[in-house]
Amino acid sequence: MLKISDLKNLIETHLKTLEVPKQPKGLYSPIYYGLSMGGKRLRPSLCLASAALFGDYTPALKPACGLEVFHNFTLLHDDLMDHADLRRNQPTVHKKWDANTAILSGDAMLIKAYELISRSPAGALPQVLDVFNQTAIEVCEGQQYDMEFEKRDDVTVEEYLEMIRLKTAVLIGGSMKIGAIIGGAPPEDCNALYNFGQDIGLAFQLQDDWLDVFGSQKEFGKRIGGDILANKKTFLLISAISRLEGVKKGELLDWLQRKEYDAGEKIAAVTALFEQAGVSDLLCQTRNRLFNDSLEQLSKVGGDKEVKQMIEDFSCNLMERAR
Amino acid sequence: MLKISDLKNLIETHLKTLEVPKQPKGLYSPIYYGLSMGGKRLRPSLCLASAALFGDYTPALKPACGLEVFHNFTLLHDDLMDHADLRRNQPTVHKKWDANTAILSGDAMLIKAYELISRSPAGALPQVLDVFNQTAIEVCEGQQYDMEFEKRDDVTVEEYLEMIRLKTAVLIGGSMKIGAIIGGAPPEDCNALYNFGQDIGLAFQLQDDWLDVFGSQKEFGKRIGGDILANKKTFLLISAISRLEGVKKGELLDWLQRKEYDAGEKIAAVTALFEQAGVSDLLCQTRNRLFNDSLEQLSKVGGDKEVKQMIEDFSCNLMERAR
Repeated sequence: MLKISDLKNLIETHLKTLEVPKQPKGLYSPIYYGLSMGGKRLRPSLCLASAALFGDYTPALKPACGLEVFHNFTLLHDDLMDHADLRRNQPTVHKKWDANTAILSGDAMLIKAYELISRSPAGALPQVLDVFNQTAIEVCEGQQYDMEFEKRDDVTVEEYLEMIRLKTAVLIGGSMKIGAIIGGAPPEDCNALYNFGQDIGLAFQLQDDWLDVFGSQKEFGKRIGGDILANKKTFLLISAISRLEGVKKGELLDWLQRKEYDAGEKIAAVTALFEQAGVSDLLCQTRNRLFNDSLEQLSKVGGDKEVKQMIEDFSCNLMERAR
Repeated sequence: MLKISDLKNLIETHLKTLEVPKQPKGLYSPIYYGLSMGGKRLRPSLCLASAALFGDYTPALKPACGLEVFHNFTLLHDDLMDHADLRRNQPTVHKKWDANTAILSGDAMLIKAYELISRSPAGALPQVLDVFNQTAIEVCEGQQYDMEFEKRDDVTVEEYLEMIRLKTAVLIGGSMKIGAIIGGAPPEDCNALYNFGQDIGLAFQLQDDWLDVFGSQKEFGKRIGGDILANKKTFLLISAISRLEGVKKGELLDWLQRKEYDAGEKIAAVTALFEQAGVSDLLCQTRNRLFNDSLEQLSKVGGDKEVKQMIEDFSCNLMERAR
């Protein structure tokens, strides 16, 4: 029986074959540096699984890798724009090299992603490109909103959800739709898988917001409270600002404005204010609704029942972390 | 009879239709800002002309615009990497907005270019993408070499020619090959047009190097001597360093190292040293050889004789500036 870990291993193996030594090294080394940092390979694995629902998944292998290369391209440029020093505990490309390297190697990575996407079977290629082009531009729109929101004080929860839909969820939806198209799925199944991927992507991002505050360092894999220290406008912060009133609201806004503070103290205080605002529950409700919506979308999809079960189990396992 | 100016006007009109107001404006405005600055529209015009050689050029219109959008994307990111403040006498995107805007709007522009390229007729699409992907990555390689060369003192003329081949010439070759593919040309004609475009692209760049020093401001359209003031490693400077000896070489190297100088004095002195090194003649010889090579490639191409004559006349007119 097909396992998601088999698909992930296939992706890892294929990504390694891309590492042919090429000149100029100053352009190509940063690309492989980013790709070799690992990760869940969520998008290409779900792309292959979506193809496997309907047929042979091997024609989707190169496009699936293209989706992972694209995802890593967005991380590379986003880290530069966000001035992030570390990614998976390693120095980011603009720190290890410099800003120009991050710009140009990122550009080359986006082109490399398209090169791999272009290896879709010719019959599926126009439709695959339609989905990918649309997805890719929406990811840029999401990043633009994310940057704009950091400068605004009046971001609503609805705007936040739309931003993370664009920035992270559409790529999961698009990856599954592309896999389904290459697998030869009927249009309604392609769309249901897109919706499944988009909803599960939103649920994952909300879970990430939750884990940053209420998770344990072990299950989260990153330092707890990072979003709080960065005043990051997550679902929790935006909801808390809108829900709190009076003194409590003043306390929260005060923490956001303070320039000097003890990190542990700020994390503890803001976490307590989140609890008092009830935004942890609110997040979990929204996340669970999205997760249930996603499973409903998946239930509509045809194709191989075992593969479908595998996709469902995989999604449940990923959400499990958050409970 | 078809005129190159008709093709250029078609491109201008079609580029304008892309300017649909879209949100977020912070992402999309800088794209149209760059595209509306004008320019010769050399690449898309030659793409359409190459299609017209063999049949109806209208199916090449969107991909041709994609080539212009790609070219403008490279200008946007190159200006950021080179810290250039002005482009066609207007502030560059990172000056008018900021670096992050230049990065992200540039990324969106590259995706937009692919979206337009994807509108190639389905039968031609895989081949068009092969040429475009290869060309696009080579342009990045050229920019990388260009940046590396600025930090090196031992760049040879051969390395320089290879750099400008990648950075500027392959995109002209690729644009013509893509037009020819969409027009339905036989493979040998596609390749001959690629070679024509590449050789003429090299000749144009050498002419640009020459005009920067020996042209008049009116025919060049930019301030004369800009490359000299920036110590830009052009064909002229690289050749002069390798050809001059003794006191004269010392004088040239001294001008390159001086931090404080009168601009007019430096331009006059370096221009005189170029004359003494005979590098103006050397450049003109190389440029003319490439131009003749390009015309020989064009002579091999089949298709409509009037369109071919139009391409030849257009190229001669562009070179005429330099004589």
